[in-house]
Amino acid sequence: MNILVSCDENYLGPLRTMLYSLIVNNEGTDFDIYLIHKDIPEDRLAEMTGFIARISPNSSFNPIKIESLFSTAKVNFYYTEEMYYRLLAFKYLPEDMDKILYLDPDILILNRVDELYNIDLEGKFFAAATHSYIGVKSFNVARLSVSSGYDDIEDYYNSGILMINLKKARESEIYEREVLSYIENSKSIGLMMPDQDLLNVVFRNDIIKISEIKYNYDSRRYLAYRLKDKKYDMNFIMENTVVLHFCGKNKPWNDDINLGTFTSLYLHYQKRAQEA
Amino acid sequence: MNILVSCDENYLGPLRTMLYSLIVNNEGTDFDIYLIHKDIPEDRLAEMTGFIARISPNSSFNPIKIESLFSTAKVNFYYTEEMYYRLLAFKYLPEDMDKILYLDPDILILNRVDELYNIDLEGKFFAAATHSYIGVKSFNVARLSVSSGYDDIEDYYNSGILMINLKKARESEIYEREVLSYIENSKSIGLMMPDQDLLNVVFRNDIIKISEIKYNYDSRRYLAYRLKDKKYDMNFIMENTVVLHFCGKNKPWNDDINLGTFTSLYLHYQKRAQEA
Repeated sequence: MNILVSCDENYLGPLRTMLYSLIVNNEGTDFDIYLIHKDIPEDRLAEMTGFIARISPNSSFNPIKIESLFSTAKVNFYYTEEMYYRLLAFKYLPEDMDKILYLDPDILILNRVDELYNIDLEGKFFAAATHSYIGVKSFNVARLSVSSGYDDIEDYYNSGILMINLKKARESEIYEREVLSYIENSKSIGLMMPDQDLLNVVFRNDIIKISEIKYNYDSRRYLAYRLKDKKYDMNFIMENTVVLHFCGKNKPWNDDINLGTFTSLYLHYQKRAQEA
Repeated sequence: MNILVSCDENYLGPLRTMLYSLIVNNEGTDFDIYLIHKDIPEDRLAEMTGFIARISPNSSFNPIKIESLFSTAKVNFYYTEEMYYRLLAFKYLPEDMDKILYLDPDILILNRVDELYNIDLEGKFFAAATHSYIGVKSFNVARLSVSSGYDDIEDYYNSGILMINLKKARESEIYEREVLSYIENSKSIGLMMPDQDLLNVVFRNDIIKISEIKYNYDSRRYLAYRLKDKKYDMNFIMENTVVLHFCGKNKPWNDDINLGTFTSLYLHYQKRAQEA
């Protein structure tokens, strides 16, 4: 199974925790993991290669170093340039690779990813989940409709977990042009979450919607989900949620006396990943 | 490593989760697990035997059925008769067994138990942790001092995690007599936590005190521990706590909209244990 990740050196710790959770909760599956990066030192990459070899001998870890593409694109302090790479990943991946699952480093994988990986992409570019939080969604949909001029933007997809149709991206003439032109033309005013905007404007009609609860569960919103439907109790989440996404600025690996609902779970995985 | 557990049929689920956490977080250690019980059906025991064989092929699961010993002892709805068995376990265990680690079923094992298992018992009967919550401790110490007539009760030990010196218990003439006589003489007024009272009165000078934070961390008290010493943040707990004890009546496997600090961690383990 092909996995795409991308981060800078500061995120190698969370990346290790995420990959550990992916591997231990998908016993019997081998992974070919591709890390697209700009400037992670060789010794840190070697450390990660050794880690993957120890915990999953039949899996592989493949760093791909690329030169900066978007020197003019505005990035803010926590959405970094690496976040664009997932969208142009097909240029750097093996040419015979049909599809890949992109995963943010700030997640835990709690259950098997097979069903997501084998989803029928129906000829579209991506599969992704929206975040249903009503304020954020309508704000972003309105913002993008105005800034892009499109009136058919109905959802706001989160780009943290993506099934990517590499074959279609490679075959499509417009794909790369659209991505690069959106980036070049972006005005700083629209760049609150630049990579997600790109996904939501350019590919608005080319995304298969997948379940938020299963594949992009926002770790901050346990009570909100549960109030929406009482079946979403903690047992349900542990049974069904595949991807637990630690969205937002407060990350579980930063000490905070106000613990999140999933902080103990995250830090236990972090500890086991560090030891593995 | 010898492990003692005791429960009724209703607690086999939590027991399975506990044993799963013990085994996956103590890789390379084989366990001989002894379950003292009264009336668990054969098929449920066979299920547990199969479970242990699957997750730890060199470990063993040994149910020991015993007849009711204390038909006259008063038990309340959540401290059941099985809780006494740990104290007379030496009578039912192999005669050449020197020591055993007793573990309640309502715990998670997060780290290696070797250091606890190899603690120097210094010729005493038990190693156990006190629960430092000041109200409970002084209430129980006062209550026991009055009801027992002893004025040298200084601590109140929790009996949920015990290293037991079987050799000493077997060799001691007074041990069994003291246990049985305490039980017979107990008046219902003193029986709030009968098994713990027994430990704290009869063996008050025969217990090695072990770290509460490491070996009997009360899952309800994250903030209290942390306010006492700010080093006890969640990273510290995940690094150092071996035994996370879900004390009290609200258990993490019972649905409750007010989640505890460690509920997500517990239920993830429960799910993995169920699948294993």
